[in-house]
Order: sequence, then structure tokens, then C-alpha cells
Amino acid sequence: MIGSMAPTASASALAQRLLDGDRRALARAISLVEDDRPEGWELVREVYPHTGRAAVYGFTGPPGVGKSTLIGALTRSRRQAGRSVGVLSVDPSSPFTEGALLGDRIRLSEHFLDSGVFIRSMANRGALGGLSEAALQAALLLDAAGREEVFVETVGVGQAEIDIIDHADTIVLVLMPGSGDSIQALKAGVMEIPDVIVVNKADHPLADTMVREIRGVLSLGNLDAAQARDRWRVPIVRTEAAHGRGVEELVARLDEHRRHISKDGTLARRRRHNLRGEVLALAGARMRRRLEEELREDPEFQQLLEEVVQRRLDPASAATRLLERSGPAAG
Amino acid sequence: MIGSMAPTASASALAQRLLDGDRRALARAISLVEDDRPEGWELVREVYPHTGRAAVYGFTGPPGVGKSTLIGALTRSRRQAGRSVGVLSVDPSSPFTEGALLGDRIRLSEHFLDSGVFIRSMANRGALGGLSEAALQAALLLDAAGREEVFVETVGVGQAEIDIIDHADTIVLVLMPGSGDSIQALKAGVMEIPDVIVVNKADHPLADTMVREIRGVLSLGNLDAAQARDRWRVPIVRTEAAHGRGVEELVARLDEHRRHISKDGTLARRRRHNLRGEVLALAGARMRRRLEEELREDPEFQQLLEEVVQRRLDPASAATRLLERSGPAAG
Repeated sequence: MIGSMAPTASASALAQRLLDGDRRALARAISLVEDDRPEGWELVREVYPHTGRAAVYGFTGPPGVGKSTLIGALTRSRRQAGRSVGVLSVDPSSPFTEGALLGDRIRLSEHFLDSGVFIRSMANRGALGGLSEAALQAALLLDAAGREEVFVETVGVGQAEIDIIDHADTIVLVLMPGSGDSIQALKAGVMEIPDVIVVNKADHPLADTMVREIRGVLSLGNLDAAQARDRWRVPIVRTEAAHGRGVEELVARLDEHRRHISKDGTLARRRRHNLRGEVLALAGARMRRRLEEELREDPEFQQLLEEVVQRRLDPASAATRLLERSGPAAG
Repeated sequence: MIGSMAPTASASALAQRLLDGDRRALARAISLVEDDRPEGWELVREVYPHTGRAAVYGFTGPPGVGKSTLIGALTRSRRQAGRSVGVLSVDPSSPFTEGALLGDRIRLSEHFLDSGVFIRSMANRGALGGLSEAALQAALLLDAAGREEVFVETVGVGQAEIDIIDHADTIVLVLMPGSGDSIQALKAGVMEIPDVIVVNKADHPLADTMVREIRGVLSLGNLDAAQARDRWRVPIVRTEAAHGRGVEELVARLDEHRRHISKDGTLARRRRHNLRGEVLALAGARMRRRLEEELREDPEFQQLLEEVVQRRLDPASAATRLLERSGPAAG
């Protein structure tokens, strides 16, 4: 699928421009990976040795809690501190992703005009597996292009085959008063405990209740092994992102988490773990896609399926026959 | 991985007992698939021609909304109508799954003593992919054992590789006042519109607001193609499952949906679609698991990973090398 290992001249030129921080090169590069073009993968391969310098923050949470407004506010703060920022939205419900929601366009226009900020959304909802793959590559491209802070926004429903949030160094869960379902999911251990929890829209009368509930969940000691090992106390930050309130405290907590994981090799361990997961997820997703492609027009598969529908062959045996017949992963 | 195609004598004996509706045979059979034993898969293969008769209902929704209490109430109603019931819980936060929560044990004790009800939970959280696979097999076993109504309970977070809910003929989303996150997810199109929506704990003062919000979402016409084609108006049913209120109306709506999909070949089409997805998901999950098993102790993979960590080789290229090297799917 991927062409020769030696980069072509044009890819190399694009890679160089990207490494120099050229915005148009970056935009072009992300389009290439988004469209699953071989040149895109080649480019990532070429610039990969220059990655690993960006601080990558993943923002997750239900739609409508204000993740993008919060990221907008954080971007402002980071820009004031002179840091370059990349924003990657892989949330199909995000205004970044829609791109055309007037209110948010206006709210974000300051950033759209700032060369220190690069905002990109990806929302090809038809192929979630492929989308997450492409998003991982895009995050690497932002990193290689010298973005010091990378904010990745995803929706907290997580049905993607490769979970882009796992690429982040720091995971921020954004909730708001009324996020009862998420609290229950945290409490039940169905949703993993993040590094930082934000209660946005904290001017809501039920904000205190929400904070108390979260505190209750955290005190249950419902922490996974990795978090307990990291000895990190998950902070709860109240924000009103739309008015910039609480944003500086959030910045402080994010910095604190960064310092925390930078000690004792935690960051290196986390990244190693994440990279291992990425390699396996990429391999798994490709195997599966290859299988589906092979089968799309395959008369033998149609016949197998017909036998399953007629209740003559059970689904597991049909799967076994498929795997015995072809060697899709070796293709 | 799977042994000979001819069933062994003991498997055949177990299959026969299972088809005769023997509870202990059913329990034993589900344990076999849960433990991923070859005899389990063999058994499913053998009894598969006797499946397809059960009405399978999938219940999804956030933890804590009362799905299991609702299923308990529905079970009571179905038993009064003389129907045999199977309950399968693949929700790690469910009291069925915990099994030992005293209150629920008492509430459900009538069912535990009723031979017309078979309740089984599966919650091996370590291997969600494997769990969903096993759950699909278990649902087939309940069907083969002559359970007329099968209720499958899953938590609405859906990170499993194979989504067990897709096996159901009718999908019921259970919410409660305070399920703001789920409403937002529905609104944003991040969560699929189910066939029936239940607002449980409807004695809550905010129940009316919740129903109105759901109605608003449904009126947005945010329906997927399949649903629009099926020309089904998604009903919203209020229940207080703990007091049995609204349960009969829910039963009526479920029956109505059943009649609706039984017309015009909708049920057959839906099942064909589901079975196709199952075969592909089973094949994909197995390929991936095989790959991970192969790599667990593989020194070459450790070396590849080290190169990725050292930023000398990018994750996608590492995945490509893995796939080129081995032919895991053909193994």
C-alpha cells in the first residue's frame, strides 16, 4: 500500500517546508493524510524524527459542554505566553468541525487570523477507524511543524477503533452541570478517570452539586493502576470558558500535570505505552479494512453470508472460514 | 483454533439438552463460550440452525438509569403472559453483572426461582472484544434453548469492538431526568437514534423537560437512513420501573415495533445486516487478537517498538512492517 521507502523529491520539499513551520505546507500535509494518500504517510515517516517536542493535551467530554470554547480560551492564554498552538478537532459535533457555525466563527476569528495558531478539524464520519488513524498522523504533523502546544478535541463517546485521546500526554475531561450520565459512567468505572476534570458553565446553579458529585467519585478510589502509580491527585477546575473565567487556573493545573509527568520518567513511560497502542491499533485497523475491501464484491463471501442468514452456518464458523481462506493480513 | 467440524459426542449430548431447554445445559454452554473453549464454539455451530426464533431486545443507556430494574419489570410482565425469558447483561456496571448487590438480588429473587427465566451476566472487563464476541454467542444459545424473549443489557458507552446491541431486533435507549449528556449526544448525531426511548424515574420533577428535549431531538429529523426507510416513529415511554409504572405501555410499544418490523421483510433485512456485521467483526477481532498474541513475546516487535519510541520509525511504518513480516490472519 505504501510506496517505496525512499521519499520522493516533492515529499521531501514539502517535509522541509513543514519542518520550517510553513502553515500552507502543514495544511497540505494534513489533507494528504486525511485523504489517505501515500504521500501523506511518506511525509509523516520523514518528519517523525522531529516529533515528540509538543505538549499534547486531549479534551474529551459529551457534546455541548463547551470544549471548543474552552480550547479557544486556552489558546488565547497560550498565545499571550508566546507559545505556538495547534488545535485538532476530531469531534463531529464540534463547531471547529462544522467550521461554518457563525457564532463560533466570530468567537474564534482572532485565532484564525493569528499565524501562531493552526486550527484543523477532521470529521469524515463515514470511516471512524480511518478518521482516528488520520488524526493521529495529523497530531504528529502539528508536532513536527513546531507547534508547542497541541490541543486535540474529541467527543467522549469513543466508538472509534483507534482512540485519538490515547495519544495525549494529559487527558482533560470537560463536563458541565447536568452531565449526570458522565458522572455515572465515571462512578461505574465504565469511563476512565482523566488527569484533569473541568466543570464548565460553572455559573449554573447546579455547578456546586456537580463538583461535589465528582469529588465523591474521585474519593471512591476508582483510579486505574496507571493513575495510582503516577500518584497524581486529579484536580477539578471550574470554568466559564465563554467569559474566560477559570481559564488561568486550568492553565496552572495543566502546567502542574506537565511538571508532574515530566518527573520520574512518567511521560516517557506514558508515551511508550501510547505508541505501542498506536502501532497495534494501526495494524489491526488495516487488517480489518483490507478484509472488508476484499470481501465487498466477493461472491464467495456473499454465499457464506447467505448460509449464515439461512441459519445453516453460524457467524463464528463463517468468520473462521473467511480467515482460513484468505490471508488478508499478509496481502 | 477450532477443532474438527464434526461435533464430539459430549458436545452433541449437551446440544440436545440445550435444545430441550435444560437450564443447566444452557448455563454450562454459556460458560464454555465465556471461557472461549472450543467446545463452546462447536456447540453454537451445532445449535445455530435452531436460532432465529427469539425476539431479541437490546437495552442501552448510561449506568444508573435503571435498565436492570426495567428489565426485571418487563420480565415479570412477559412471564405473566406465559412467555419464557432470557436476560443477558454485558454491562459491567449492572447489578445483574455484580450479582451480589443485595437489594437487587432480593428484587429479582422471584425471577431467580422461576424456571421460565434465565438470567446471565458477563463482565470479563479485561477483554471487551472477547466479551462481546462471547455475548453474541450466548444470545444465540438463549435463542436455541427456546427462550422466546431475550433481553440484552449493555451500557451505552460502546467502546467494545463488537457491539452486542447490534444483535438486537429492537433497540431500546433508557434515560432518566438528568441524562443531559445522552440528549446532547443524540442531538449531535454522535449517538444513533434507537427504536424506542424510555424515560425512567419519570416521577422526577424534570421528567417533562427531558421528554420535551427528546421530542425536540427526534423532530430534528436526525434519523439515520435505515430508520427513515423503516418509517417508524420512535415512541417515548415514561416509566417508574421500580414501581412497575409504565411497564405495560412499554410492552405495548415493544410489541408494536415487533409487528412493524415483521411487515415488509424489515426484520429479515435487519437481521441480515446484523449477521453480516457480526461475521466481519468476529473475523476482525480474531485477526487483531492473533496479532497481539503473536507479538506479546516477540523480540522483533520489541525492537520495532523501541525504534518508534526513539522516533526513528513512525507508528504507521512500524504497523506496515508488522503486517508485511507476518501473515497473522492466515495463521
